[in-house]
Amino acid sequence: MRDKSRAMPRKSNARRDAIATAARLFQRQGYHATGLNQILSESGAPKGSLYFHFPGGKEQLAAEAVALASRELEKLFEHAAGKSKTYRGFLAALAGGLASWMERSEFREGCPVSTVTLEMTPHNDALTEVCRTAFSTWQNRVAEFLASVGFAERRALRLATLIVCAFEGAFIVARAERSTRPFLETARELSELG
Amino acid sequence: MRDKSRAMPRKSNARRDAIATAARLFQRQGYHATGLNQILSESGAPKGSLYFHFPGGKEQLAAEAVALASRELEKLFEHAAGKSKTYRGFLAALAGGLASWMERSEFREGCPVSTVTLEMTPHNDALTEVCRTAFSTWQNRVAEFLASVGFAERRALRLATLIVCAFEGAFIVARAERSTRPFLETARELSELG
Repeated sequence: MRDKSRAMPRKSNARRDAIATAARLFQRQGYHATGLNQILSESGAPKGSLYFHFPGGKEQLAAEAVALASRELEKLFEHAAGKSKTYRGFLAALAGGLASWMERSEFREGCPVSTVTLEMTPHNDALTEVCRTAFSTWQNRVAEFLASVGFAERRALRLATLIVCAFEGAFIVARAERSTRPFLETARELSELG
Repeated sequence: MRDKSRAMPRKSNARRDAIATAARLFQRQGYHATGLNQILSESGAPKGSLYFHFPGGKEQLAAEAVALASRELEKLFEHAAGKSKTYRGFLAALAGGLASWMERSEFREGCPVSTVTLEMTPHNDALTEVCRTAFSTWQNRVAEFLASVGFAERRALRLATLIVCAFEGAFIVARAERSTRPFLETARELSELG
């Protein structure tokens, strides 16, 4: 897979751009509303390149888009953890980061893992697995931070589950309300658990 | 609108069945994956009846399906509140009800308001409004219960926001995990806030 760039120049860019475009479109409108033609036209990928890079078609592209989104959210969790010395600081950093993202998108974006989960699981095994892995990775990252600031291991994992669920839900409610209120209130209430 | 049943017998059943079918399909696969033909065939509605009952087409049907789902979840919140004398009892009843629902559906269903929100807001004004109203109604019902067991009004609304967001997120994570764990852990952790 990695050597294909020698056969077709700028192939790896086309591949990366298609994945990023798919992730962005899934965030805005979901999996089914996003056709390969729209991904092609918005990513500027040459026609034919999609099936070259993604022989598994839209499902493979979606799996890669979910994996990309998973890494990006993971970085956001790690960034909030890296700059926070306390549980409350972590929540404030996390809520601030997610709220800014939503505001910048004018409440048009959300979590692409959510929408693929709601549209494609559990009937699609491959996408179920990549979505499950994303949620599990985030919960583990949060739990690791919680353990580092003194929460017992079992409690850290349980609280991490609540934090990930709460922010996933806040993404949805914030979008319908066109407001960052759900992130900020959720974080403020969660901080009482520290 | 209400008088159409005189013109066409069993019309109100066809109407109600179409709305319930749409809500169920949105829960399983989302808004865009659900075509009017599938709603027709699964609800058993006579051909032509959809445009008679829903001159606004799929968008109108979706708005009614979201409103139906909103009332059903509202009843679940009210039922949990009605049989609970304490904050912890309420959370246990709520999480138990939602977890049973997910288990009965073999993790194939979710909240239809979430999927319509993620696919159709904020670009569709009518659906944004009906989704916003659903989330706001649930938050108010939960806040009313919290106030009834002693939470101050401002705190009750903030905690209700967290509870609604957390369970909305748990619906998604539970589906990817094919497990009721997210509901149960979320409720257990939330009960520490009482």
